Amino acid sequence: MTHFNRLTPELTAELRRVAGDANVSTAHADLDLHARDSGHHEAHLPEALVYGESGPQIAAVLKFANEHCIPVTPWGVGTGLEGNAIPLYGGILLTLERMNRIIEVHADDFQVTVEAGIPHKDLNAQLARYGLFFPPDPGANATIGGMLANNAAGIRTVKYGATKDNVLRMEVALPDGRLIHVGSRSIKQASGYNLMQLFVGSEGTLGVITQATLKLVPVPQFMSAIIAGFPTVEAAIETVVAIRGSGVDVAALEFIDVTNTQALNQAGTDIAPYPTLLMEIHSAYEQTLEVDMQTVREICEDAGAISFRATADNAERKVLWNARHHAYETLVRNHPGQRIFIMDVAVPISRYPDLIEFARQSIERHGIKGYMKGHAGDGNIHVELPFGDPITFEKVQAVNGEIVQHAIALGGTATGEHGVGIGKRAYMQAEHGDALDVMRQIKQTLDPRGIMNPGKVL
Amino acid sequence: MTHFNRLTPELTAELRRVAGDANVSTAHADLDLHARDSGHHEAHLPEALVYGESGPQIAAVLKFANEHCIPVTPWGVGTGLEGNAIPLYGGILLTLERMNRIIEVHADDFQVTVEAGIPHKDLNAQLARYGLFFPPDPGANATIGGMLANNAAGIRTVKYGATKDNVLRMEVALPDGRLIHVGSRSIKQASGYNLMQLFVGSEGTLGVITQATLKLVPVPQFMSAIIAGFPTVEAAIETVVAIRGSGVDVAALEFIDVTNTQALNQAGTDIAPYPTLLMEIHSAYEQTLEVDMQTVREICEDAGAISFRATADNAERKVLWNARHHAYETLVRNHPGQRIFIMDVAVPISRYPDLIEFARQSIERHGIKGYMKGHAGDGNIHVELPFGDPITFEKVQAVNGEIVQHAIALGGTATGEHGVGIGKRAYMQAEHGDALDVMRQIKQTLDPRGIMNPGKVL
Repeated sequence: MTHFNRLTPELTAELRRVAGDANVSTAHADLDLHARDSGHHEAHLPEALVYGESGPQIAAVLKFANEHCIPVTPWGVGTGLEGNAIPLYGGILLTLERMNRIIEVHADDFQVTVEAGIPHKDLNAQLARYGLFFPPDPGANATIGGMLANNAAGIRTVKYGATKDNVLRMEVALPDGRLIHVGSRSIKQASGYNLMQLFVGSEGTLGVITQATLKLVPVPQFMSAIIAGFPTVEAAIETVVAIRGSGVDVAALEFIDVTNTQALNQAGTDIAPYPTLLMEIHSAYEQTLEVDMQTVREICEDAGAISFRATADNAERKVLWNARHHAYETLVRNHPGQRIFIMDVAVPISRYPDLIEFARQSIERHGIKGYMKGHAGDGNIHVELPFGDPITFEKVQAVNGEIVQHAIALGGTATGEHGVGIGKRAYMQAEHGDALDVMRQIKQTLDPRGIMNPGKVL
Repeated sequence: MTHFNRLTPELTAELRRVAGDANVSTAHADLDLHARDSGHHEAHLPEALVYGESGPQIAAVLKFANEHCIPVTPWGVGTGLEGNAIPLYGGILLTLERMNRIIEVHADDFQVTVEAGIPHKDLNAQLARYGLFFPPDPGANATIGGMLANNAAGIRTVKYGATKDNVLRMEVALPDGRLIHVGSRSIKQASGYNLMQLFVGSEGTLGVITQATLKLVPVPQFMSAIIAGFPTVEAAIETVVAIRGSGVDVAALEFIDVTNTQALNQAGTDIAPYPTLLMEIHSAYEQTLEVDMQTVREICEDAGAISFRATADNAERKVLWNARHHAYETLVRNHPGQRIFIMDVAVPISRYPDLIEFARQSIERHGIKGYMKGHAGDGNIHVELPFGDPITFEKVQAVNGEIVQHAIALGGTATGEHGVGIGKRAYMQAEHGDALDVMRQIKQTLDPRGIMNPGKVL
């Protein structure tokens, strides 16, 4: 990675001509704002900030960078957690924050075409008047481009799928300056290689997603929230399996470990300290919602639930989900002066109790604190590990490594939704074996000089 | 493509050592059975038939073929329609028909791992005792490997997705002899490039899918069928849009053009000669099924439906769907001595009426017969064009070309579910533009000698 060139004053002047003078900044304050993400990874300053303004302009910037062997790191809004958008090798930080327009709402097709820099919450606010929404919700107000590049997911994946499942077509700029279109506005396509899914989740290491046509779904008319406590993790997960087998199409199916109930309670709930499931059901009809809620109640009782509360009341539902969303901030407040390492792995659902027990033992063995919650419906778990000094950080990293390796051994993945970035690179060989070499061949084919987001994924 | 070597007696002897003597046949009857698919494309004989027996054996066969520059065409059961598995350049026809075992049912995970040669109906028969099924159903009893390689879809895609949406992990043999695993049994994975979706739909031109872990869903307890006739195609499609916006999760949403109602009636139904929608609703509860059926009835009436019949009666439902499935055979019987060219395109749903009107005019202009039906919920249409002589075949091809080009112009695709094979290659440039070159680069990277299913897709 030492073959990169620095952005000399001459090259910077040329970059200004290519990108547009108003789209380039080398001001320290601008660079510093784009040096770190929302995770625990070390900051790195880029040499120049480039504001993307269109697909052709971004393609031209990449061509320039490729010719001069200057690294380019695409940037959405910086909500990543694994260093995915940290400019490790300096060079150009390409931010899409100014490309935040809706290009067209295709209401009859339940689709919208957007510039990649639009944050998903802003998009949904604008779509509300059509009665439609884009379901993936990673929590933070990430951009659509960032969500696509990282295949972000979140609490609604169990019903609506991850970001990869909700995109139909993309415009992508390649390092050699080509601007291509992948996928189709047709829901079905059996035509040629699925390049779209190759770029989705590639974390900006193959090209830059500049536009996307997304699938939308009708805003559900009726919603209910359910919270249930169980004597054991096994009983909670047995419930998850039974609900998925019942035909009830839950929109969220979250697991809250006993280690995390306190943080939720501080954020507004009143949960007993037991393994807990937090659920949401969406329906177009009040009657079907009631049938679903009754079925879920019976399943929970059969599994020996200690507590069960269901509500179709909007205010009460919001308190629950706000607590879930703000539990992390509560955790931060409970650990003043410390940072939180948020880890992310996923396993087949049948292996979930094993993983949680393993994580608990690993945390205990290393004598640190750890808080668990996760998207149980998807087999995805997050462990939050506070640290404030180098010795604890080392222990946190050891726990992280043990849990990741165990998840892979259980047939799972090193990352369910945060992506590889910097933090999960070490585990790619264990997870993918020889397929990792095929990934490297594809990287070499599309980005032979390695300028796209170097130091990530592979 | 003239650089391929023939299978000399010496090479055939070596192939027998590599593949296992009992797994190689050069008997004419065997070769002739694997020279054509179920479509209209010309037959080509392979030089040798190889029975795949395992991933490692297939990897070894590919390595051998690659070293000696011999083409390899993977074969499921020959139900393709676009020549996808016809061995255009001779060489090895690699059939997976003996690899038809279920390796493991992961019941708690709603997953099954299978050898790629198992036909999907056989798989579902064996899964029935778990109360689970694999939803994609292309009609014919295609193998799972063939369905994955072609990204097959069918009538249930509107609810359950295409084959690509129902696979989690695959074992894939590459031309250089590597046997890799792509994807994960974890439902969520944000780890590395999505190689799995690169191989899905690549029609055996990049490697051979040897095993797959598939997603399963619970068999629905209650099903109903609905059939409704409309004064115009527009009214029918307006209904499709309204149903998709209503939140009713229909499991099938089929369009039957007036040109096709007669064939269905001969196959057992009693449909008036109007644009018709044939629907199915799956539900875990009788109550929700009733609510859904009532909603669909109201939507159809609002759109001016001329007729509406709904039934939760299993026998009546089966008559309807049998007629739909056997309409093609009826068509064949109505055109004795002729063959049927079945074309397949898909567009965004809002463009469906435009496409149907265009197809009708094209058929009329060329003075041939054409019958239309399609998966309206997905914007997918099939036009069946009988021909019995070279002049009619030329007209059929002209109509096919016009409709494909119009579908692409409408933002659609040259193929929704039959794949590119031989028949749709001519339209790849129009549909994909510069992305086609990226596909070629990937082909060159993974299969530099071009031995994998040559003459297809690209």
